Amino acid sequence: MTPTITAFARSPDGGRGLARDMRVRWALEEVGQPYDVRLVSFSEMKESAHRALHPFGQIPTYEEGDLALFESGAIIFHIAQRHAGLLPEDASARARAIAWMFAALNTVEPPIIEREAARLLERDKSWYEERLPILEDRIRVRLGQLSSRLGDADWLDDAFSAGDLLMVTVLRRLSGADLLAKHPNLTIYVARGEARPAYRRAFDAQLAVFTGKAPAGC
Amino acid sequence: MTPTITAFARSPDGGRGLARDMRVRWALEEVGQPYDVRLVSFSEMKESAHRALHPFGQIPTYEEGDLALFESGAIIFHIAQRHAGLLPEDASARARAIAWMFAALNTVEPPIIEREAARLLERDKSWYEERLPILEDRIRVRLGQLSSRLGDADWLDDAFSAGDLLMVTVLRRLSGADLLAKHPNLTIYVARGEARPAYRRAFDAQLAVFTGKAPAGC
Repeated sequence: MTPTITAFARSPDGGRGLARDMRVRWALEEVGQPYDVRLVSFSEMKESAHRALHPFGQIPTYEEGDLALFESGAIIFHIAQRHAGLLPEDASARARAIAWMFAALNTVEPPIIEREAARLLERDKSWYEERLPILEDRIRVRLGQLSSRLGDADWLDDAFSAGDLLMVTVLRRLSGADLLAKHPNLTIYVARGEARPAYRRAFDAQLAVFTGKAPAGC
Repeated sequence: MTPTITAFARSPDGGRGLARDMRVRWALEEVGQPYDVRLVSFSEMKESAHRALHPFGQIPTYEEGDLALFESGAIIFHIAQRHAGLLPEDASARARAIAWMFAALNTVEPPIIEREAARLLERDKSWYEERLPILEDRIRVRLGQLSSRLGDADWLDDAFSAGDLLMVTVLRRLSGADLLAKHPNLTIYVARGEARPAYRRAFDAQLAVFTGKAPAGC
């Protein structure tokens, strides 16, 4: 059964792959699972039909027969349970990869989102200039810790996993910021993720929503 | 094999159950798994021995033979995989319960943590009074959505699950704040979680670290 995901009809990032449907598209591409996409407008996201799928009125959602899921982390975990390729078979390695999934979403992403929120919503406030360095210091601490752990490894725990998939999408939110550039190993790590064929297919498919052009190869 | 978790030697909350080891203790109590606790000081948390267990220098960690895990969400998921009682057997219900685990940690907790961070770190800043209502509005939106979804149900998706366990611990961070009191169903939901015998045992055990008294019944 082909699952259906939701994505922004008009993306705030203009198709640079930062919306959270990108993570789910990438996971589906990694495992070779075709999918359908239903685009939703900001007003539709607030309506009760969408709220029945996503209690917090966001994207992405995932529908597959009678099953409806929300939260990109949970959707990716579900895909990883159904298909080989996103989580190791070995029970301990699998548990560690899942720890990286939670670390990406609960430890590394929140301070990055806070900086984005401030840049969007507090740029005209008197405190913005003084507060931004505080926010960036919080990110700096996390990136330093992550960079130390990664070292010169290709991926966070041996083979590529859903933990890397989520961490790369989280770090990509910093693309172009000096914060990430200070850690060459993290910069290369993100590029290594972006170079995966499944990533490219997912990126092209989400970009095509906004350019109106079919992805290359279609 | 008895797992060992780490907890604060000196808890910032004085034992009110807000430190993240509480979640793991509760999960272990729900499934009836005995555990050992190793207390770590703030300086030990920064040392390389602890960093080997937790790349971000936090608590809790979880050690069981050769397996070492970090991130409370991942540890609870691991416990739920090993034992009955925290996730439904049915595959779809299980996927939905996992969605609530991620929702608690990635959608509901971050704005609550931001308010705490501001109260701790920005209280003496000129912008504090003006910014606090902005932070509280973000929480208010999430609580309203959560309250609508919960309605008059006992738990978020039929039976009690690890999703409820995490959501209750996240909402408890608001105890005493008007924000939560505005939603009687959420207040009762938190109380319903706190009334579980496993919760009480976990709470008493973490409190005993700070009072030096053995938990009741020991």
